[in-house]
Amino acid sequence: MDNLIYKHGGNIYEYDKKLVDFSANINPLGLPPVVKKALLNHIDRVLHYPDPEAKELTGCIARYWGIAKENVLVGNGSAELIYLAANTFKPKTTLIPVPTFSEYERASRSVKTKIQFLKLKEGKDFKFNPHTCEKADMLFICNPNNPTGNLILKGQKRIGKIANMIIADEAFMDFLPDQKNHTLIWRAVKEKSIIVIRTLTKFFALPGLRIGYIVAHKDNIKKLKQNKAPWSVNSLAQLAASLILKDKKYITKTYSLISKERDFLFKELNRIEGLRPYPSITNFILIKIEKNHINSGSLTKRLLKKEILIRNCANFRNLNDKYIRAAVRTREENLKLITALKKGLTD
Amino acid sequence: MDNLIYKHGGNIYEYDKKLVDFSANINPLGLPPVVKKALLNHIDRVLHYPDPEAKELTGCIARYWGIAKENVLVGNGSAELIYLAANTFKPKTTLIPVPTFSEYERASRSVKTKIQFLKLKEGKDFKFNPHTCEKADMLFICNPNNPTGNLILKGQKRIGKIANMIIADEAFMDFLPDQKNHTLIWRAVKEKSIIVIRTLTKFFALPGLRIGYIVAHKDNIKKLKQNKAPWSVNSLAQLAASLILKDKKYITKTYSLISKERDFLFKELNRIEGLRPYPSITNFILIKIEKNHINSGSLTKRLLKKEILIRNCANFRNLNDKYIRAAVRTREENLKLITALKKGLTD
Repeated sequence: MDNLIYKHGGNIYEYDKKLVDFSANINPLGLPPVVKKALLNHIDRVLHYPDPEAKELTGCIARYWGIAKENVLVGNGSAELIYLAANTFKPKTTLIPVPTFSEYERASRSVKTKIQFLKLKEGKDFKFNPHTCEKADMLFICNPNNPTGNLILKGQKRIGKIANMIIADEAFMDFLPDQKNHTLIWRAVKEKSIIVIRTLTKFFALPGLRIGYIVAHKDNIKKLKQNKAPWSVNSLAQLAASLILKDKKYITKTYSLISKERDFLFKELNRIEGLRPYPSITNFILIKIEKNHINSGSLTKRLLKKEILIRNCANFRNLNDKYIRAAVRTREENLKLITALKKGLTD
Repeated sequence: MDNLIYKHGGNIYEYDKKLVDFSANINPLGLPPVVKKALLNHIDRVLHYPDPEAKELTGCIARYWGIAKENVLVGNGSAELIYLAANTFKPKTTLIPVPTFSEYERASRSVKTKIQFLKLKEGKDFKFNPHTCEKADMLFICNPNNPTGNLILKGQKRIGKIANMIIADEAFMDFLPDQKNHTLIWRAVKEKSIIVIRTLTKFFALPGLRIGYIVAHKDNIKKLKQNKAPWSVNSLAQLAASLILKDKKYITKTYSLISKERDFLFKELNRIEGLRPYPSITNFILIKIEKNHINSGSLTKRLLKKEILIRNCANFRNLNDKYIRAAVRTREENLKLITALKKGLTD
């Protein structure tokens, strides 16, 4: 990356040993078996260009939500779509509640918009209060928010007034069994001022394949399509994604695993002296280090020695070197993390 | 696609039967065996984010050309990189010699540059003559040119004066055994006004995986990186591409196959009454239909009935419905094409 502030978790390539990766928020169930089998059986699909229209996948997504195909646009992960939105609507002013995923800022800078950062307050549970900011052309909102793990937006009715265009990144919404009560997808289909970005990376454990999608009013989809480079979703990604949305078993299994393990991890973290976990409704937990002599950098290093990679949150705007983030993983892995954290804080 | 003019070949998804695809210009040798094996053995790589820096692949490309890593940037096929170049340098005026690959125009329109189309003349072998145009901010040049199949630029010395920024798309340069005498790669490393875009899609038969790269001056690479969405090259693409550049056997086998089959196909096409193939130095041939009652649309339809997909060139600027394009494939497939064309012209 060109700048430290834009460094993310999940970059296992920086290390020369095998690590348990708590830094990327990926479903610990791993690749759905039906997807793995399909990829192995159809590896020759790489011999052909991907369908530039991604017709089959677009249809699957539309059916999954009960919306029209004209309201869906697939892309190379949510990352491509964040840049595409900024590029297409070229806002003059952009509002970004922080701490949050840094690519909103990076994408905004690439279109030279004036950015206003709105600081979410720890004392107010990192909730987003739309009354505290001036109206902007564009608002990027991550809901549930990364790295705070909470729904920062609940009273949906008010949001229409905050910005001319609201880009709601719902990358972690899939982990909520009652996501249908919280997503802005059905409003985005009707209202031209709301665009929802989703990803199949986190919930379906496919970050390496790159698949995301936008749900929006059909006029917005048309505008976005005009600026989009063709073929950005590769053949294998289209194949995999068309299968996974139908895998109901994997979905319910994930709900139950994440809910159980998040509760377990939260309780265990809460019992460790010097750590303060924040309540999360999704698959990762933000943790504050409340010991003077230890910061997020030194703790991350200590855990690395034990083959554990956590997310050092020091480079998030409006956080500092007292914050780390950990994904919710399997019981065995979570226990390993807990043991390592206890040692890391006392050694 | 949003507009017919931007429709490409290779879209096998529009048809519900198995076709021999002469419309996409892909190496008929297919997936290099070493790549197929690696993909099957490492399918679990999709579980992790791709390396955002693509360090290993960038290093392989740099070593392949004997240049520094700082001069290389990988992307999601050449398509992402064409849009990235237009977006990063935001030219006021852009020159595009036509007929050519339509994405230069589409990318240019997305940044609202003023486009000047320079018509390449059939009577002058579709050669590009820089003296016939005014200087522009940006020039897109496809060399060898798609769909004409020739090197439209040879006298390299003069090109510096045509535009402030020359984007040379060398997607088909790999098929020239003497490509080192024609590529602008070594000039691009030194000169800030030249950027070369390459792809691993065509020569290495990987269009479904999406891998391209830019070679440019390190200051240009820095600027481009700042605007690029992260993780656009997926994990499997990075793995495959890191292997193929070392596969010398596949490379020499391709040279010999393409050279032999291109000569064969050209001679056979030339013997068909009513067809005029244009000399090509790469892996496809542009063909003019010289029969009054048959156009490219009707011929394409007739071949489809025989399970053959060719590229109808009617939507290329500065061509019309008398042109088709066909990739050079294996002897068996080329014979099938010849037989079908003969029938298609007379039936």
